[in-house]
Amino acid sequence: MPITMYSASVPVFVRMLGNVATWLDKAEAHAAAKKFDPSVYLTARLAPDMLSFAKQIQIACDAAKFCVARISGDEAPKFEDNESSIAELRERIAKTVAYVRSVPAAKIDGTDAKDISVPRRDGAMSMKGEDYLRQFVLPNFYFHVTTAYALLRHCGVELGKADFLGGLPQPSAPASR
Amino acid sequence: MPITMYSASVPVFVRMLGNVATWLDKAEAHAAAKKFDPSVYLTARLAPDMLSFAKQIQIACDAAKFCVARISGDEAPKFEDNESSIAELRERIAKTVAYVRSVPAAKIDGTDAKDISVPRRDGAMSMKGEDYLRQFVLPNFYFHVTTAYALLRHCGVELGKADFLGGLPQPSAPASR
Repeated sequence: MPITMYSASVPVFVRMLGNVATWLDKAEAHAAAKKFDPSVYLTARLAPDMLSFAKQIQIACDAAKFCVARISGDEAPKFEDNESSIAELRERIAKTVAYVRSVPAAKIDGTDAKDISVPRRDGAMSMKGEDYLRQFVLPNFYFHVTTAYALLRHCGVELGKADFLGGLPQPSAPASR
Repeated sequence: MPITMYSASVPVFVRMLGNVATWLDKAEAHAAAKKFDPSVYLTARLAPDMLSFAKQIQIACDAAKFCVARISGDEAPKFEDNESSIAELRERIAKTVAYVRSVPAAKIDGTDAKDISVPRRDGAMSMKGEDYLRQFVLPNFYFHVTTAYALLRHCGVELGKADFLGGLPQPSAPASR
């Protein structure tokens, strides 16, 4: 299949957010083994002026949600940023995955040259769909997902690159014997 | 322009590695202001069993280099992993950017369904070009770039999201008056 606006967005979000959910499971198991309250992860930061773990997850979810809503012309569901436990962060991820999956590929493919308006502090900014996805959404999404991973590693959770990448594509069937 | 194997790879690598080079400038300025040897950044780690800052930069560069070589069918230039200063890391980035820029778009576009063989510890793995780029190269590239950023932030270097993303696309000219 050729790369498209859909293939480069929704399946990427679904796959990576699914991986993040598995990190939450490992984080909870680590807290149980070390006998600490897993909600302490939510306020962990790598530097005092960086955002907390909970915020990293919320923004990663929002990067996916708003991308899909803006390029498809759909209305994004509103989620309060009030998660206060690992269970609630898991739910935030599940709601986000359910939403991005609900938008049909036909509403996303072909939006490469569509004008996308991105609200910013100093006024809305307009970008073409492809620039928006490649230069704004994907770096931002991966930034928050990777920072969440780094925070859990910094907190001692045993994660590795395989947890980050998730299951790799199955080897293709040989083209001939 | 529609999203393609080229647009989703080379310009992304060039842009993000260019951003990383600006972080190195800020890291050097921070070390000078705090009067420490900037080479201490090279061995910084977020957890004892995570890779060092130097290694994060080397692997981010290699993710870009090998992606371009494998999908285009070109031979990747060999770089020794022996950088021992910020200046040498900057040079590694420059060599990588020069290489990925040297491969013409025509050798990369249309490789969506090409079989790509990825050497791994337990034998080579075969993936279609598009799966390789979206599910393996880009998450891996962003993982190492973001971890390098997180390490500098953790070391006190004043970087923000604008440094991570770099200059955003210019607002498009209005389609009509």
